[in-house]
Amino acid sequence: MSEIQPSVSYSFTVRLAIVNKPGMLAKVLNVIAEHRGDPGGVDVVAVEGKYKIRDITVSARDAKHSREIVEAVRVIDGISVKYVSDRVFLLHIGGKISIKNKVPVDTRDTLSMAYTPGVARICMAIARDKSNVQSLTIKQNSVAVVTDGTAVLGLGDIGPEAAMPVMEGKAMLFKEFADIDAYPICLSTKDTEEIIKTVKNISPGFGGINLEDIGAPKCFEIEHRLKQELDIPVFHDDQHGTAVVALAATINALKVVGKKLEDIRVVVVGIGAAGSAISRILLEAGVKELLPVDIDGILNRDHTDHLDDNKKWVAENANQNRVKGSLMDATKGADLIIGVSGPDTIPVEAVEQMANDAIVFAMANPDPEIRPEKIQGKARIIATGRSDYPNQINNVLAFPGIFRGALDAKASDINEEMKLAAAYAIANCIGVDEVGEEYIIPSVFNKKVVREVAKAVKEAAYDSGVAKRNS
Amino acid sequence: MSEIQPSVSYSFTVRLAIVNKPGMLAKVLNVIAEHRGDPGGVDVVAVEGKYKIRDITVSARDAKHSREIVEAVRVIDGISVKYVSDRVFLLHIGGKISIKNKVPVDTRDTLSMAYTPGVARICMAIARDKSNVQSLTIKQNSVAVVTDGTAVLGLGDIGPEAAMPVMEGKAMLFKEFADIDAYPICLSTKDTEEIIKTVKNISPGFGGINLEDIGAPKCFEIEHRLKQELDIPVFHDDQHGTAVVALAATINALKVVGKKLEDIRVVVVGIGAAGSAISRILLEAGVKELLPVDIDGILNRDHTDHLDDNKKWVAENANQNRVKGSLMDATKGADLIIGVSGPDTIPVEAVEQMANDAIVFAMANPDPEIRPEKIQGKARIIATGRSDYPNQINNVLAFPGIFRGALDAKASDINEEMKLAAAYAIANCIGVDEVGEEYIIPSVFNKKVVREVAKAVKEAAYDSGVAKRNS
Repeated sequence: MSEIQPSVSYSFTVRLAIVNKPGMLAKVLNVIAEHRGDPGGVDVVAVEGKYKIRDITVSARDAKHSREIVEAVRVIDGISVKYVSDRVFLLHIGGKISIKNKVPVDTRDTLSMAYTPGVARICMAIARDKSNVQSLTIKQNSVAVVTDGTAVLGLGDIGPEAAMPVMEGKAMLFKEFADIDAYPICLSTKDTEEIIKTVKNISPGFGGINLEDIGAPKCFEIEHRLKQELDIPVFHDDQHGTAVVALAATINALKVVGKKLEDIRVVVVGIGAAGSAISRILLEAGVKELLPVDIDGILNRDHTDHLDDNKKWVAENANQNRVKGSLMDATKGADLIIGVSGPDTIPVEAVEQMANDAIVFAMANPDPEIRPEKIQGKARIIATGRSDYPNQINNVLAFPGIFRGALDAKASDINEEMKLAAAYAIANCIGVDEVGEEYIIPSVFNKKVVREVAKAVKEAAYDSGVAKRNS
Repeated sequence: MSEIQPSVSYSFTVRLAIVNKPGMLAKVLNVIAEHRGDPGGVDVVAVEGKYKIRDITVSARDAKHSREIVEAVRVIDGISVKYVSDRVFLLHIGGKISIKNKVPVDTRDTLSMAYTPGVARICMAIARDKSNVQSLTIKQNSVAVVTDGTAVLGLGDIGPEAAMPVMEGKAMLFKEFADIDAYPICLSTKDTEEIIKTVKNISPGFGGINLEDIGAPKCFEIEHRLKQELDIPVFHDDQHGTAVVALAATINALKVVGKKLEDIRVVVVGIGAAGSAISRILLEAGVKELLPVDIDGILNRDHTDHLDDNKKWVAENANQNRVKGSLMDATKGADLIIGVSGPDTIPVEAVEQMANDAIVFAMANPDPEIRPEKIQGKARIIATGRSDYPNQINNVLAFPGIFRGALDAKASDINEEMKLAAAYAIANCIGVDEVGEEYIIPSVFNKKVVREVAKAVKEAAYDSGVAKRNS
């Protein structure tokens, strides 16, 4: 990471008219390479007189880099730039999802069955027994992806409109990975009570609610209340998705180093939505010694006055020995550091003083708490949230399978048992003989993951009593 | 209509094992015919030893009739019924719509562009200029189909869950007829203020709001307030969809009988959501003499104390001559009666005393205000809401094109000019040389309708100033 690498996130396609002369294309590609662009596909679009029209796709580091490359190409003799299109913007034009009818409504018969008058019989069947809504409508397979736009990615409070592309993207992932029909709902209110009321009001047609990118601490209250007041699963992915995958990574990392959850000392850096959920799930999974560290140092049950309810819970349930001090105090002799805070918040010295076979998860995105290069050889296992290092801790491993299992079970909740089951299912997608320092987490494209997670979550839903097994 | 006819709304498929003997299938079909079932497709599914397994699809009058037919078939020698499946229920299992990704998210590259980190650039583009949400998300093509389940079809207050199949069906029609991505939102509140607040809260991701099957009089307040407070089109289809199509039917009916809107006397029977909207649009279109008739007789501006705001508006703006009296008084010499009330509310005698070339729209569904058979030869033109008579007045002719036009124009409203334009566009889909007593309304499957309506509505949006023409 000494230099940011070009990525498709900043890729563009440039359409060039290139004069028909040997070596011209090579010249273009050389110029792109000299400017450190990463060329992808090269297609001939047309031949116009003495020109070939070619589309060249190039990945760049950022918008400025894209412009540099185009300008460098523009000044080559015998070349003219016809236009430049940004691939990411192109992909988003008109939105990324659409509605699909399961049957065409192009005859009188289908119209009479899918709509009036036939549909009235279906309505009456549900009016007689509300539980029929599960089998006879989209509810059984639908999830509302709800945000107020206050904590979108690392971008902060950018508003509901600007949050739409993320929520649409999330809906895409639900569909692609778990065949779930999710719809983005971006709210124009930031008020806790109004958010709760709105989600409750729109809930009858949905089989589950995925809360997303809602700022802390209000996200805790919103999730807590909705879980109490609704009979469908409510899941704040920023908390629990991250926590489930972090636990899965922990389970496999411990296999590599030969330690046990019960014996390790964990330091969690950053006690926001993700950090508190990670702390909870690790404690539930069996971790005994966990030091939560916030900007003010180690959270401690003796000093909780200034904390919100959620941090208070963590302070009171972790740190059994009431350790006080700084991040440096906390990390001395630690077996695992999990960072869910911001860029460069964990110094190299903290890692250097960890126990043998140190494990570091630096999960801040896109810039981790500590750059993996800096602790190569100092920590035995390193994981991040990025796809360009080994061991990417990515929610996509968790939420599709969790919701798939919950919906299949017609569960009324996604509870702790289901989350733990999901974490173990993810971990177990990697065989004991396969697991290693650079392979503690399966790939997001491993199709086994969603299947195994869904199965485990469904069973856990039955066993924990939030769903009824069909007799 | 002396006897209800079998329909696909009550059709079923029966799987039979039929012994291999000549004439067996004919025997089955005879039994179905004797019991007045209407057989459709006959398919061989398999041959098992000396049996042929056949699926026979049969339309019946109702559920009881279906059972009778199956029982009659069951007792035939050499036949066994393997199972019976209800076609309408089958069509609804698992819901009728689903989400579709416009591109697959099955590679790291697409994931990086459609979701993090690439999506962040799209978010920032919208955060910088909110209007970009139109081009870069599904908003530009999406409509929320919102109901509180209080006035669903003719079924009344059956609740949000039981309303789902209708709203899903509506979403299907949006997709099929206008390629609009509509999503059903069924609300668990019946409170006017809460409905308004909820719709406002979820509006940022939607390009339009279609209110549906919300009871009167609260539907008026809800629509009125949402139109004022939102910058996207809000349209209560039960009111305006019906009104637009009724006006279209009126325009063409008058062509047939050679009368003018300005000269006719109209009686509207039933001043609910549809009746009041029809009254308004007819007055706007140029009708001078309109008598609104409710259960208490002709509405009159001298007696409005007992009326809700909406009926009061009708009473004050129609019936210029302050006519008093009953339905029978109103219909004397009338040119057009429009019924939007309930079954059998218009007596034959009312039609008999109309002017020459009487026109009757009996739109109550499924049972009209007066059965067309009873006034054959007494009214020159008859229209209903049913598909089994000529001249079906069906909202499907209006709302898809109206929303298509409004979304294409990025209109902030669907105003009166746009509705009038839609009505004329529907009417003009039938040529002057084609229009006739039994053809005043185009078929719902006439693909020209949505195109023409959208074009007219878009132009009207520009001309009336609720949308800006791209320069």
